Amino acid sequence: MATVEIDTLKAVLYQALTRAGVAPNVAEVCARIHTESTRDGVHSHGIGRIPRFIDYVKRGWVDVDAIPTRVQQLGAIEVLDGHFGVGVTNALYATDRAMELAQEHGMGLVALRDTTHWMRGGSYGWHAVEKGYAAILWTNTESCMPAWGAAEQSIGNNPLVMAVPHQDGPLVLDMAMSQFSYGKLQSTRLKGEQLPIDGGFDESGHLSRDPGAIAATRRLLPTGYWKGSGLAILLDALAALLAQGRPTHAIDDVQKGSGGGSCQIFMLFDPEQLGGRDACNAIVEGIQAHLAAVTADASGRPVRWPGGSTWRNRNSVAPLDIDDGLWREVQALAL
Amino acid sequence: MATVEIDTLKAVLYQALTRAGVAPNVAEVCARIHTESTRDGVHSHGIGRIPRFIDYVKRGWVDVDAIPTRVQQLGAIEVLDGHFGVGVTNALYATDRAMELAQEHGMGLVALRDTTHWMRGGSYGWHAVEKGYAAILWTNTESCMPAWGAAEQSIGNNPLVMAVPHQDGPLVLDMAMSQFSYGKLQSTRLKGEQLPIDGGFDESGHLSRDPGAIAATRRLLPTGYWKGSGLAILLDALAALLAQGRPTHAIDDVQKGSGGGSCQIFMLFDPEQLGGRDACNAIVEGIQAHLAAVTADASGRPVRWPGGSTWRNRNSVAPLDIDDGLWREVQALAL
Repeated sequence: MATVEIDTLKAVLYQALTRAGVAPNVAEVCARIHTESTRDGVHSHGIGRIPRFIDYVKRGWVDVDAIPTRVQQLGAIEVLDGHFGVGVTNALYATDRAMELAQEHGMGLVALRDTTHWMRGGSYGWHAVEKGYAAILWTNTESCMPAWGAAEQSIGNNPLVMAVPHQDGPLVLDMAMSQFSYGKLQSTRLKGEQLPIDGGFDESGHLSRDPGAIAATRRLLPTGYWKGSGLAILLDALAALLAQGRPTHAIDDVQKGSGGGSCQIFMLFDPEQLGGRDACNAIVEGIQAHLAAVTADASGRPVRWPGGSTWRNRNSVAPLDIDDGLWREVQALAL
Repeated sequence: MATVEIDTLKAVLYQALTRAGVAPNVAEVCARIHTESTRDGVHSHGIGRIPRFIDYVKRGWVDVDAIPTRVQQLGAIEVLDGHFGVGVTNALYATDRAMELAQEHGMGLVALRDTTHWMRGGSYGWHAVEKGYAAILWTNTESCMPAWGAAEQSIGNNPLVMAVPHQDGPLVLDMAMSQFSYGKLQSTRLKGEQLPIDGGFDESGHLSRDPGAIAATRRLLPTGYWKGSGLAILLDALAALLAQGRPTHAIDDVQKGSGGGSCQIFMLFDPEQLGGRDACNAIVEGIQAHLAAVTADASGRPVRWPGGSTWRNRNSVAPLDIDDGLWREVQALAL
């Protein structure tokens, strides 16, 4: 493991991105978001995603100069076309725009189509709560998981983010519809371990905890079996409907890499106008206190709330441990 | 099993409800909704729920004369107080009101607080798609499931409904955050069977497929383990925030039965204003055709989409098979 200061990581990512042709202002934002994801422990969508992002830029799958344009304005709803621009800045733009609409209407819904991979969905949930807004956000994706009952990849893992603000520890959920990510399969396999529960199917079609066997079949298990499969299908249909864009099977045809041509939904809510800031804080504190007081199971660990451990990471300035090979690869991209 | 004509069931439910003091117009709606849920195969929230509903009415936990009143109007958002009125008619009122707002604004969000059990959440999803609207709906509940890592009931199962219309088979998802319902535990136990996958914890704290053992501990498994637990927590916080009402731990203190004092969210979208009816139909048809063409797993069954089997039930007028004892119990309530 390499030990890397946060500011060093950000500077190297900025260098790598500008060297790939990303404009300085866009590279600055992307370097910050990828650094934050790394610091928050989500290396797969932080530094780990930089080489692939740069590859997509070089292939022309991400248009680093495109900016979102408005397709429709309908009360508190705005539909944007992302023109295959940078997924991170497109998504931040949409989040900020939805906040403006929420300030005006109590809630804002921005639906973004023809965008590219937003990396870690949680980034926009954290962005929202740091500005004092509650949020429901999701994306559809290309097929990367079998529907329940299917032998082949046929639905997206369609990450869903929900967030409620509090200045001392907001609730932030960031969940994909697969029980585990490919990143988790890889890191578990490299440690020579098995998954703690079934995570997909092996070659013979049986449920398995073997990360290598699952990665080989690409038959990830939807979270909650039929339930996560159904939720992925509905998130897909609603994203395509609201953004007037592509559902998963049509994203498959775009062939511009993971997330290229996807739809994203950004619903932001202003607690100031919905009972007030104090009431929102009381809800978050009440839920956290309730969970803290619950009897733990046999693990003996206190019950955690979504966002709790990330919140602690986000307040740390300690240097980060980064995989040696990855760090060398990204440094080389910055030269 | 008793064989009961649909119209007979509805008439008997109407009689039972009016005999319990429910006004004719309210009883008419409730009898229809409970009959439809029974016909759709959801007996637990159809005829099966009538004795408990009538018990709640007799205890004064449901005020059969209360009607929702407006607390706040904010653009496309409306906050209602349900005054512990009948959950079904409160929820239908909220759905209809959200449709009116959606007609005006493209989307409508009605947040309802101090309401009672809405029975089967899917009823309102089906109601929405039959009127041509897409929907995202959910409720919070009292604690009925342990949070992930907890040994005791501490979160709600907080059912979530998502629906996208199509005149020949809409997509309708209706999922609780527990992997199985208590109704499913009971019916599986009565058949002397085991659950197909783990559904909760037994007395020794181990994951179990034994429906009797799980019902005894009341330690239901959240769907997707930590994921369904996290989603339940965020659905709870957002419901309480939007409705300016009670989160799960505060519903626990109300002590007016299951669902008494809960919050419900009704988000309705008008496809006419979001790309148009044809585009919405094309999304639904495209997803269904894609799933129909997918290679099935070892079961060999075609891959299903959420709402598909219910859609077929809804178009049937065949008499219903109803548990003998339950049918006698409900008939006695109607005398």
